[in-house]
Amino acid sequence: MLPALQLKPGTGPRSLQGHPWAYASDVRELLPAKINGQAVELKDTRGRSLGAGLYNGQSQIVWRRFSREAKPFDHAFISHAIPAAIARREPRAFRRLVWSEADALPGLVIDQFDDVLVVQLLTLGMDARREDIESVLEECLSPREIIYRNDAPTRQHEGLIMKVSSRSGESFPAQWFTIDGVEYFLDLYEGQKTGFYLDQRSEHLRVAAMAQGRRVLDAFCNQGAFGLQCARAGAASVLAVDISQDCVKATKTNAGRNHLTVEAHQANMFDWFTENRKETFDLIILDPPSFARNKRAVDGALRGYKELNLRALRLLAPGGVLATYSCSQNVTLADFMAVAQHAASDARRDVRLIEITGQPVDHPALLNMPESYYLKGMILEAR
Amino acid sequence: MLPALQLKPGTGPRSLQGHPWAYASDVRELLPAKINGQAVELKDTRGRSLGAGLYNGQSQIVWRRFSREAKPFDHAFISHAIPAAIARREPRAFRRLVWSEADALPGLVIDQFDDVLVVQLLTLGMDARREDIESVLEECLSPREIIYRNDAPTRQHEGLIMKVSSRSGESFPAQWFTIDGVEYFLDLYEGQKTGFYLDQRSEHLRVAAMAQGRRVLDAFCNQGAFGLQCARAGAASVLAVDISQDCVKATKTNAGRNHLTVEAHQANMFDWFTENRKETFDLIILDPPSFARNKRAVDGALRGYKELNLRALRLLAPGGVLATYSCSQNVTLADFMAVAQHAASDARRDVRLIEITGQPVDHPALLNMPESYYLKGMILEAR
Repeated sequence: MLPALQLKPGTGPRSLQGHPWAYASDVRELLPAKINGQAVELKDTRGRSLGAGLYNGQSQIVWRRFSREAKPFDHAFISHAIPAAIARREPRAFRRLVWSEADALPGLVIDQFDDVLVVQLLTLGMDARREDIESVLEECLSPREIIYRNDAPTRQHEGLIMKVSSRSGESFPAQWFTIDGVEYFLDLYEGQKTGFYLDQRSEHLRVAAMAQGRRVLDAFCNQGAFGLQCARAGAASVLAVDISQDCVKATKTNAGRNHLTVEAHQANMFDWFTENRKETFDLIILDPPSFARNKRAVDGALRGYKELNLRALRLLAPGGVLATYSCSQNVTLADFMAVAQHAASDARRDVRLIEITGQPVDHPALLNMPESYYLKGMILEAR
Repeated sequence: MLPALQLKPGTGPRSLQGHPWAYASDVRELLPAKINGQAVELKDTRGRSLGAGLYNGQSQIVWRRFSREAKPFDHAFISHAIPAAIARREPRAFRRLVWSEADALPGLVIDQFDDVLVVQLLTLGMDARREDIESVLEECLSPREIIYRNDAPTRQHEGLIMKVSSRSGESFPAQWFTIDGVEYFLDLYEGQKTGFYLDQRSEHLRVAAMAQGRRVLDAFCNQGAFGLQCARAGAASVLAVDISQDCVKATKTNAGRNHLTVEAHQANMFDWFTENRKETFDLIILDPPSFARNKRAVDGALRGYKELNLRALRLLAPGGVLATYSCSQNVTLADFMAVAQHAASDARRDVRLIEITGQPVDHPALLNMPESYYLKGMILEAR
């Protein structure tokens, strides 16, 4: 028997509509602090079960469902859920292996970089099962190393400290990894996010497939993956721009190692567009960081996206392609499409929507959890 | 010098925002009837040009832009625009060659079925250029036959009669065409639409790639393309259902010719789902006809889509896939995603959004013409 948490009467909170979370404000009363991190059954006002979730009264999100059945969150569950998540994915050397609620493991994120696993434990309940998780991973994949990137700020909402560590106890030096034919010098231990934007990997290739003979602008280039893949695919030229000096350096280092010609500039993208009104491009990639960290920031984010997309459209040669992305979970696809529409209107150009792109299959979104659908993109062609 | 049409003062009509149409209610005054079918320049209230379009005062849509420059719609324009549209497309034997506003040829739709072209002339201005169009098509493609499917009811809005004809003057008998490895008996002269849903061709293959070993339900099967491709890809079983006896017959005929096992039933899909609550499937395709022929019908359409998707989700085995589509131009992608979300919620299942699908590259949507973005789909996986 699991401890039970009950929803408040009144308008149905999202958890009644299948969302896997309950907020503190949704429940009748919180449970004793000793229950934090444990599996708890959520019940509606009539006592019907909404399934089992990990509880943490310290967080605003007090309950995160891992099953629609009232079952314990134990070694048996974990040793079934992790292999099931792996089995759903294609056998590739670089991939997201486990993605939190989308894999019924709320707060557990695992990325695979060849024989190295990068693990994030983002909830108290998951953090408490680190040993179970590690033993299952050993058994499934025998990794060379497991890095715990427990430095995500969201851990603080769960009352957890921020700390990077590894199974071996050693730090893990940056090294070369070959992803889709390009070598990248990746710092899995201390780099941004978990070291590489695996969620854009299929986009790097989709865009590169259009790059041959084209003058390419890779805006917000990060480690240069879009630009490098375009150069490799035979782009006429590649200019990569990022505000971070580290990213510009990484792009240059990666380009050198791969014998690819990519020019990399450090600049604020908005300023760069203001100063560069003449040079045109045949293919522009706009892959900015999230502009809307919370719902209050959405309006500003939409203005930012609009401005960027407008400026990019203005620099596109006739027949040019804009690959534009938003990774803000608070910006919906409908919002983002409207932004592109306004940009096209202001640019006074006929813009064709070639394709809507989304998260790759190893980062699936849950239909009933809009927060899980964060990455959206469009391939546009301007006349 | 083109005749000029001027927008009314007041709130900016869509044509100011880059939409390629002006409505009768948007303009200061209509032009004399003798201008119907001719190229006309649209000007805003301050006299600035919004480009050149085909005019027809008999239609609600009085102006459809073909260029942002004020230029005539003559043989020179057509003999450039048609080859340009063809050049933008991949060289395939079955494809949409020209798609109206998206190819700067408002009211002209051309589908290629190997060496046969199926042409729709949907505006008065385009209908008047039939000879020019035919001569350009002869020169570009030397087709065996050109069929004029001028039986679309929208022609009546333009004051045109409904009539099917051909270049040769003969009717064109139904015959076998091989599309993506499957033979279909297509009646290009009198069949539904232009004979085959070329806009779903890439979806037939995308879905078939998931069909191996699965029990498939092809709902609203039409000529059976989804089901036939699934059977060919090694589905464990395929059940195809359509309300039209002709479609059921066509599906059976096609299955027989291709030595594929597809069971085909005639039924109203809603009734069928009500009566079949037990048999489960691993892959369900929902590709209904448009439920919302106009904006007033949208609410009803959304209820219809919700009900269908809910019923389909209920019949999916764990891990099963639902490929669900809407071809209603009045139903937005955001609407359609909300429908799927509500269906998942009511079905009490965790549903993963694997992919959002849209129109293939030979049916591009114009960002500033929401009407051109009609086909949207989702690949969903239910736990």
